[in-house]
Amino acid sequence: MARLIRWATDGAWFASPGLPQIHLTPADLIECAPSQFDPASGQRRAALLDLPQAPVLTGAEQTAEGWRFAVNSDGQIALRAADLAAYLDPAPIAPPRRLWLKEDEADTGKVDYQAYASDEQFRRAVLARVARQGWALLSGVPTRPDAVEDVVRRFGFIRETNYGRTFAVRSAPAASNLAFTDAGLAPHSDNPYRDPVPGLQLLHCLVDASMGGETRLVDGFAAAEALHAADPGGFAVLAATPVHFAWGDGANALQTALPVITLDTGGEIAAIRFNHRAFKAIAAPPEQRTRWRAAYRALAALIEAPETGATFRLGAGDLVIMDNTRVLHGRRAFTDDPGADKRGGGRHLVGAYADRDGLLSALAVLTGAEADRRLARIEALFASPAMDEAYGEALSIREHMLQTAALADEAELAPALVAAALLHDAGWALDGGAAAHEHSGADWLEDTFGSAVSEPVRLHVATKRYLVACEPDYAARLSAASVATLAQQGGPMTEGEAAAFAAMPGFAGAVHLRRCDDAAKEPARPAPGFADYRPLLRRLIAAHLNG
Amino acid sequence: MARLIRWATDGAWFASPGLPQIHLTPADLIECAPSQFDPASGQRRAALLDLPQAPVLTGAEQTAEGWRFAVNSDGQIALRAADLAAYLDPAPIAPPRRLWLKEDEADTGKVDYQAYASDEQFRRAVLARVARQGWALLSGVPTRPDAVEDVVRRFGFIRETNYGRTFAVRSAPAASNLAFTDAGLAPHSDNPYRDPVPGLQLLHCLVDASMGGETRLVDGFAAAEALHAADPGGFAVLAATPVHFAWGDGANALQTALPVITLDTGGEIAAIRFNHRAFKAIAAPPEQRTRWRAAYRALAALIEAPETGATFRLGAGDLVIMDNTRVLHGRRAFTDDPGADKRGGGRHLVGAYADRDGLLSALAVLTGAEADRRLARIEALFASPAMDEAYGEALSIREHMLQTAALADEAELAPALVAAALLHDAGWALDGGAAAHEHSGADWLEDTFGSAVSEPVRLHVATKRYLVACEPDYAARLSAASVATLAQQGGPMTEGEAAAFAAMPGFAGAVHLRRCDDAAKEPARPAPGFADYRPLLRRLIAAHLNG
Repeated sequence: MARLIRWATDGAWFASPGLPQIHLTPADLIECAPSQFDPASGQRRAALLDLPQAPVLTGAEQTAEGWRFAVNSDGQIALRAADLAAYLDPAPIAPPRRLWLKEDEADTGKVDYQAYASDEQFRRAVLARVARQGWALLSGVPTRPDAVEDVVRRFGFIRETNYGRTFAVRSAPAASNLAFTDAGLAPHSDNPYRDPVPGLQLLHCLVDASMGGETRLVDGFAAAEALHAADPGGFAVLAATPVHFAWGDGANALQTALPVITLDTGGEIAAIRFNHRAFKAIAAPPEQRTRWRAAYRALAALIEAPETGATFRLGAGDLVIMDNTRVLHGRRAFTDDPGADKRGGGRHLVGAYADRDGLLSALAVLTGAEADRRLARIEALFASPAMDEAYGEALSIREHMLQTAALADEAELAPALVAAALLHDAGWALDGGAAAHEHSGADWLEDTFGSAVSEPVRLHVATKRYLVACEPDYAARLSAASVATLAQQGGPMTEGEAAAFAAMPGFAGAVHLRRCDDAAKEPARPAPGFADYRPLLRRLIAAHLNG
Repeated sequence: MARLIRWATDGAWFASPGLPQIHLTPADLIECAPSQFDPASGQRRAALLDLPQAPVLTGAEQTAEGWRFAVNSDGQIALRAADLAAYLDPAPIAPPRRLWLKEDEADTGKVDYQAYASDEQFRRAVLARVARQGWALLSGVPTRPDAVEDVVRRFGFIRETNYGRTFAVRSAPAASNLAFTDAGLAPHSDNPYRDPVPGLQLLHCLVDASMGGETRLVDGFAAAEALHAADPGGFAVLAATPVHFAWGDGANALQTALPVITLDTGGEIAAIRFNHRAFKAIAAPPEQRTRWRAAYRALAALIEAPETGATFRLGAGDLVIMDNTRVLHGRRAFTDDPGADKRGGGRHLVGAYADRDGLLSALAVLTGAEADRRLARIEALFASPAMDEAYGEALSIREHMLQTAALADEAELAPALVAAALLHDAGWALDGGAAAHEHSGADWLEDTFGSAVSEPVRLHVATKRYLVACEPDYAARLSAASVATLAQQGGPMTEGEAAAFAAMPGFAGAVHLRRCDDAAKEPARPAPGFADYRPLLRRLIAAHLNG
């Protein structure tokens, strides 16, 4: 990927499929050069202050491996395409969040513990769900008090606190924390008096209550966004005002002074601390306290509204993993069987804390491995002998697809359309040229990439039928082979078919793609090879896996 | 403490020794009422949305225990002085930071491990030093690989990471991290690719290198403040620009996108992430990248300047505790004994991570317990029969000191001077009325409060001698008893003594205090009791303990 477009003393310009053209300064080029890194650890080895302070680019040439740049008339920087790709476009740290304010917006699917523990794809799905929606549910977790440690071990490490590595959540008299009573608890985040707050909480049900005790989860980010939409000023006060949270029991005196809503440097919500039980005081002057209290109350009303969140009962063996920086959890009051205490029974959950970074790292490793496997399948298909065929054109299907992708890229089509262009005739290798190659290709691609890539592929034949029907001179510009297959494919669309087709959501993209397809039949036209598209394809696969 | 000054429908106004007058709205009063809290856990029990939305104060009366307020004509709020104190003035989360840019600004005292482990005062001193200066040093830690866990257990919990609960820092071939080689490392913070980053790092030396390997610590906050002073724009760019940090080894793919300098909601430095080895790319447009790079380089130049920081050698048994959100650590390259590898020898440190909140909680518990012990000693002295004596005045020493404190408070003297006023004649109870009661009192108070309280006490007699010499009508206003003691105390100062006295740093405060002292001799004047000063005294003691 990333063609070198031009260079000057102040840097080099690159273009790459699916990305806007980018200008890398000489300092950027030095920074992404492999010579900066230790080959064993992958860490930067070069000392920061040894780098040239105001480097100037004095030469650039394309090589078989990538590019070679001269800096300050002497330093040589060899850059492979992959180095540049990693610099230009670091893998996302987490899949994009999906906010859900109401139960029906949350996918409540449980995953069986055995599948989670033994199958990487199930594990990946669970971890991706926590990253995306803020929580996931396992069932069938062995009802041993330490089983939660086995769940954590699959993605990270227990964050031990004053409550222990794990802690029993059950009703006790004169408890040091209201969580350890039978009282109902409004949705809250745990340990707001800790900094850093535990990023994940796990709750594993060993014994269910005889009555009540339902779990209620609320997406705190969705609630905060709803507050932002309704009252941006109130949202801003919650983000700007530190609040004292505290908890202590003689052996502990934990305190923080942090806002209910934490924003990142870009002004996006990074964390929510919401726990009225542990709230002590507002660290602000009286007028701001009053404004803060109104906003806090409005946020609480959103969070506690009956239609907000998801309510369900944790049965024995169920375990919920929650992002404690985002998802608030509560429970209804419960009643144990009257004889429960004497038998050592009664509602019994085991809790544990862990960190988000471990989960996101495990997810990135699993996603990367699966994306590599899928990319290898795509690449094998692309390299298969069937792609050497020409099917009546003057160039092989492989050459035709590379040209189509190059034209799609030059036309600045969306990344998924560039990938669809590159793979639109994949079906020829799958069904040996059967009539419905667009469907066999799309079906095969759908699992790997999702509909953003598969559906444009599926439509590329129908689009020809549409254009023949609706564009007077289109048919005349088609290649002989394309005209020959038209009849097999159903001929021109009827007026009704064409109107329905034009109303489909992917219509415009399909037409763009078809123009590239039709133009990509010139044997002599040079085009980037498959390798140039690897980063693009990998990113699309990873996004589909976790999206 | 906290006298109720007046009330209206929109709240109540309180004044308390050493604090500015404060207005609590009806919502504030409800919020700090003990009825809001569960007596066993100390947590808020009242549901947020059940609180009255726009409460109005309809009544207020002082009671023996504190105050009683009526809200919305019905709700009764009983408030003890202590409830109000905790709301108005929560204990500070951490002692104030002492920044140190150069070695001579850092106190490098080591504490023996046995003292740390077995004596709460030594342990408190070590933890307070980490909170204040960002690091502390222990010696004599048993050279077992797991001894670092014993150090952590005294204040918190190990933060386990991919490197283990603890990890060996020694030179290995083809290491997955440059820390595990013999290379020199520029000062850096650890694990910037983790979020949350481990808040504390411990490094325990089991075997020293035969040559090199010196540890270098730099206060990253002091360096960042120096950058702020020299280039506020550069500082702002570092605080506003997220940077990609990453590290991976096949089983891990850790990544963050966070700024080098993290600010809190008040714009103060909250954390620094500085690790060029793990720095990948700047998440910003080219122009901002260039500005960022210049600021990053300027910060690095400050950090790496030879005159910055503290350099020392960790010998076997030494252990350093560092605040990894603040203090950067580096090492010189080292050489092991050539035979070291074969013997399993060579430089060998054991590292571990932990969290700051546990340390600050342990420190708060230790500080609170010690402050309570010291306050009890002060209170016992104040209640001792010697304080019933009048020494020639028409009221007891105890009544005289309470009046002096009340006058100091009304004159809005600094908190330490109010405390000095309350305790200025404590020496009478210590030496039974010997001539130098100001010195015996000051000596006794110095250990508890430090010089801010003890030195005004020490000067209160000399100030009388000064005023007699320099203020024509002062002597005439003195009480008979005070005139009687003047001769014993050395009589009026000479001109030379008076000039030297007036040039002393505490002169103005001493004169203010003396005026209160002289006026506090009216038997009928009511004054707040000792209990009203407890929060003030406790805060001054705690500040001295950790300051």
